[in-house]
Amino acid sequence: MTQFSKIDHQMMVRAIQLAKRGEYTTTPNPNVGCVISSSQGVILGEGWHKKAGTPHAEVHALQQAGNKAQGATAYVTLEPCSHYGRTPPCADSLIAAGVTRVVAAMVDPNPQVSGNGLAKLQEAGIKTEHGLLQTSAEQLNRGFIKRMRTGKPWVTVKLAASLDGKTALGNGLSQWITGPLARQDVQRHRAKCCAILSGSGTVIADNPMLNVRYAELNLAADVLSQKDLRQPLRILLDGRNQLPSTLTCLQPFENNLAGNVLLINGQPSVQQFSQHVNQWQAPFNGNKLDLIKVMSKLGEMQLNHIWVEAGAKLAGALLQNNLIDELILYQAPKLIGGAGQNLFDTMPIEMMDKVINLTWTDIRQVGVDVKMTALIKH
Amino acid sequence: MTQFSKIDHQMMVRAIQLAKRGEYTTTPNPNVGCVISSSQGVILGEGWHKKAGTPHAEVHALQQAGNKAQGATAYVTLEPCSHYGRTPPCADSLIAAGVTRVVAAMVDPNPQVSGNGLAKLQEAGIKTEHGLLQTSAEQLNRGFIKRMRTGKPWVTVKLAASLDGKTALGNGLSQWITGPLARQDVQRHRAKCCAILSGSGTVIADNPMLNVRYAELNLAADVLSQKDLRQPLRILLDGRNQLPSTLTCLQPFENNLAGNVLLINGQPSVQQFSQHVNQWQAPFNGNKLDLIKVMSKLGEMQLNHIWVEAGAKLAGALLQNNLIDELILYQAPKLIGGAGQNLFDTMPIEMMDKVINLTWTDIRQVGVDVKMTALIKH
Repeated sequence: MTQFSKIDHQMMVRAIQLAKRGEYTTTPNPNVGCVISSSQGVILGEGWHKKAGTPHAEVHALQQAGNKAQGATAYVTLEPCSHYGRTPPCADSLIAAGVTRVVAAMVDPNPQVSGNGLAKLQEAGIKTEHGLLQTSAEQLNRGFIKRMRTGKPWVTVKLAASLDGKTALGNGLSQWITGPLARQDVQRHRAKCCAILSGSGTVIADNPMLNVRYAELNLAADVLSQKDLRQPLRILLDGRNQLPSTLTCLQPFENNLAGNVLLINGQPSVQQFSQHVNQWQAPFNGNKLDLIKVMSKLGEMQLNHIWVEAGAKLAGALLQNNLIDELILYQAPKLIGGAGQNLFDTMPIEMMDKVINLTWTDIRQVGVDVKMTALIKH
Repeated sequence: MTQFSKIDHQMMVRAIQLAKRGEYTTTPNPNVGCVISSSQGVILGEGWHKKAGTPHAEVHALQQAGNKAQGATAYVTLEPCSHYGRTPPCADSLIAAGVTRVVAAMVDPNPQVSGNGLAKLQEAGIKTEHGLLQTSAEQLNRGFIKRMRTGKPWVTVKLAASLDGKTALGNGLSQWITGPLARQDVQRHRAKCCAILSGSGTVIADNPMLNVRYAELNLAADVLSQKDLRQPLRILLDGRNQLPSTLTCLQPFENNLAGNVLLINGQPSVQQFSQHVNQWQAPFNGNKLDLIKVMSKLGEMQLNHIWVEAGAKLAGALLQNNLIDELILYQAPKLIGGAGQNLFDTMPIEMMDKVINLTWTDIRQVGVDVKMTALIKH
């Protein structure tokens, strides 16, 4: 295994910090950061990728370094690309600039091109290494990586419940279980995701806008400016064509106040929808939408990360179809009691070894609530 | 308000540390610590109360200080007693030793004697102050204080559930939802409480021993030696006289391996029980045991802290009767789904402002599980 120096680690930590700056804006592209450094660890250039169609991290860093890039090392959080997309290949730019060593945190997750960028650099006589801080680099792009490797997006299910695991009273009332800071946190998650997915039951009951409200994000302009705000696609699952076109999220809206809508239904609707609404008729599995095929379709649409805000039925169906990667549960300091509504509507389990196992990844207080984040073990 | 010095704070922090050493052994007496110090902060004597019937903290500290106690300050976590119990009044001992100042973290919580100890000291010409680190001192003796003030014990309900708030599968299977370190933690809580309370449903289903198993505590001998282990009383609620005398916890046991049993039933049992089993026929409220009167009875029995390990019915009934002070929920990294068993069996709530509110006091990982501790807002 390659031995990396202290300078190598410092530079890659910096490159990862830079990459994170794109977390609200790069999708469907990955977050990438780049540092050009002398062998003594003097930073000559820095860059990060901001938005699809604009220059990649390496290009920004090389521009900043100028002639000093000759003989320098480039640290990149992801293997440099070797193909022409909307911008020229970064491998070519690194070669042209005269860097003599490239360290990538990870290779390209797309199995069909993985290693090509590094191979191109090696052919040009550049020393290449990879694997430095790979785990941290993978965290930057969980959705992109999963989509590249499996064709499906990363799915996070967000839930809010009382400490006894109830999302609402038995009569359906739930406003507000969680406090304002938890709701602000949800806005930030929405702003980072590619699409917000919900089901017909929840949309009919709550008639939500499912958008990102810039003021509620409470972010400094240098973290995310209002003009860079990207509204996630709104995906509504409506297998039985129950959603009326009068719902808030099916109405026209002012520029950039909400995302387009993908209405996934069982048959073409006879209703007239605003032009921001697209329909797709998903295949069925039995008498329900085939959620596995839905996720493959969303992957084909280049959606990296789906943020699910749904009731017990859809959350339960996603769980049983093994489609949830991550769970975020906001637990309010409240008790609702056994008559309240459950988090997951699922089939009964008969044996303790059939329960679904989780791995905690984060537990923190958010305002008055506790936010528990866990990965589902598949 | 009295201004306390830095030395005062340091000495009282030390006295509180000392008091904590009695947490496994002092009940029904409170935990008390005492430091005798010179005005320059030189510690001349230290003591803590270990066990009912043995000398109080002040006596130990005065013994250690000897003649040096003359002109010194005594810091005590609780107002010194002024009455003859199984030991002479500590106020008299402090006067006899010649201390010239006494600082108490809090006055006696018993409204009938509160202030008497300090008054006796003042009459003897000793300067007295109180209220230093009172909140911390109250934490030492929540059960004792509640019983002195209200006549009822402090009630902690322990629960273990999956992240989606299910204590067992729909078919009742639950072994083991939580991991071994959570179960060890439960043993430590049991060892600190005065009584473990459970209901007939849980006892019939699980046939538990409801004891403290010294080896499982995994405590150093200087924290709790095996011979100092005190087995909590086992209280079984059996309003419909359903418990058969063949149950494990109704069987005779070896010395100090379990506590006595208080069987609270609806009518005198016709069964023959081992001599460690006492019966009490509680009044009813409707067709159920009157839990409020049960708690008053347990207070009269000098039980400070009741540790409840119960199913959804009893936990729900305690909750609805406003009898729970504290909730400890071990949350396992698991999902059971909506068909699992609820934490609290309670009447439906119709309005969000009727939910029960909690205050988090501690959230920590215990092995693979997360332990959430909260107080119920009354």
